[in-house]
Amino acid sequence: MPNQKLAGLYSRLALAAKNDLKGADTRTALREIIAESMSVVSGTSITPLQSNVAGKRYGMARLGSRTSRPINTDLFDKNVSLSSLFAIVDGTASSMNNLDWALYTVAMSYPLAADLTKDGDKKSPGTFFEHLVGHIFAVKFQTNPTRRVIVPTLGKEVSIPTDYVFELANDRRIHLPIKISTRERVVQVWAHQKLLDGMHGHGRFRGLLVCLTETNKQQDTSVTEVCLPHQWAAYQMYVAQLHRVYYFDPPERYISLRNTYPNIQVWPFSKFFNEAQSLI
Amino acid sequence: MPNQKLAGLYSRLALAAKNDLKGADTRTALREIIAESMSVVSGTSITPLQSNVAGKRYGMARLGSRTSRPINTDLFDKNVSLSSLFAIVDGTASSMNNLDWALYTVAMSYPLAADLTKDGDKKSPGTFFEHLVGHIFAVKFQTNPTRRVIVPTLGKEVSIPTDYVFELANDRRIHLPIKISTRERVVQVWAHQKLLDGMHGHGRFRGLLVCLTETNKQQDTSVTEVCLPHQWAAYQMYVAQLHRVYYFDPPERYISLRNTYPNIQVWPFSKFFNEAQSLI
Repeated sequence: MPNQKLAGLYSRLALAAKNDLKGADTRTALREIIAESMSVVSGTSITPLQSNVAGKRYGMARLGSRTSRPINTDLFDKNVSLSSLFAIVDGTASSMNNLDWALYTVAMSYPLAADLTKDGDKKSPGTFFEHLVGHIFAVKFQTNPTRRVIVPTLGKEVSIPTDYVFELANDRRIHLPIKISTRERVVQVWAHQKLLDGMHGHGRFRGLLVCLTETNKQQDTSVTEVCLPHQWAAYQMYVAQLHRVYYFDPPERYISLRNTYPNIQVWPFSKFFNEAQSLI
Repeated sequence: MPNQKLAGLYSRLALAAKNDLKGADTRTALREIIAESMSVVSGTSITPLQSNVAGKRYGMARLGSRTSRPINTDLFDKNVSLSSLFAIVDGTASSMNNLDWALYTVAMSYPLAADLTKDGDKKSPGTFFEHLVGHIFAVKFQTNPTRRVIVPTLGKEVSIPTDYVFELANDRRIHLPIKISTRERVVQVWAHQKLLDGMHGHGRFRGLLVCLTETNKQQDTSVTEVCLPHQWAAYQMYVAQLHRVYYFDPPERYISLRNTYPNIQVWPFSKFFNEAQSLI
């Protein structure tokens, strides 16, 4: 049945994030929706799925007749202490042990709870993930992002919508697209980077793409990762250059892109916590 | 109820188009699916919808409990002679009166029939439209397109999937994305054009985008057009340059883009029949 409490917490998060993404209200709203989500998930059993991804194990949660998206069972712990998860939200996590594991658990919390309590809701898990990651960056950079950029065209002022854009104190700017998964839509990210480069100069905006996972559950309940590494290399060579791609559950085929030209810098998201100061 | 005959004709078209898009089997398969589709639609009544699009009237067809997508009732005639519609498929239509009207009717035939006989099938109308437009271009250019391009990278041969690409005799190449509607996904078209430009040189591929319509039926059964002209202008200025954008039901806000920099050439698709020779 629909979880009214979860729906209320989601609405509260959306409002707080819109008003002040880096602020205390957003932090509180994230803490509360994560706590409620983990409470939903902790009451379930996780059954193994057949993994077609080398080196990774996946399972899924069940609640009544509903099943969840695939869960990387080496990265997710439904019995983790909430204080570890709250440290991620609070921006105090950089020295934590097992940071990859806490990050993945917190990012999957609401998406799993939504899978298990609602039908056909593809939108709210993506929006939650965007608010969570946006909040982490906004706290780290101590500024809120915008979602529009001015087109520097002659004679009229026009703005167009973008992913999050941060303007930092030293005239550095960050372009931050955030996606639960990318699939064939990923070319949009490179295209928007090219647009920003074209409008405001190459290197003016550093593009950081943040993704949760590329898993896909087949009808036979086996799990694959959908990866297009040749396309990514071509986009990085010929469309625009992303500075980093961070994953909570990194596909090995994308991590390997670091090793061959054009050496796209794909990393576990935990790396951000150690290198954030060098990005700004 | 599902229309088995229509489903069989759709499968036959898909197979013929894959084997030889310009060929006689594809022409025959298009003729047959168009005839069956018009037979489905001609048995329905078209009821007016409230149009929020200045200068255009829209309606929708009903069959049992199903309703169709919006129909531009000034461009669609369900009682048109099949010979007029077949002339479009056969490539003998360039001197026809009311070409815009025959083009719109033939393009809407199967999408309407699918709306009225199936639930939740968003894919097959788009594929039909792609086969129809692809066939018209392949007949006109007397060559079949490919759907992959080789990435000219150093030391290894890699190909990636694309929209239709035609290699013409004079070393001219056409990049032909075909979309029922574009919405916010349209940036993909400019990104793929930029990719081709980057890989093979500016001007090597002429980009021709072909779209059916940008209508959207609201829940209250009124019709709007979803247009993003500022984004289009920014993409054309800063990402890549499309040579033409053709519409079967052209939105006025996109047609107007011709009049201001960067003067994107948006035209009714009928123009292609008169200018095809100058494109190649």
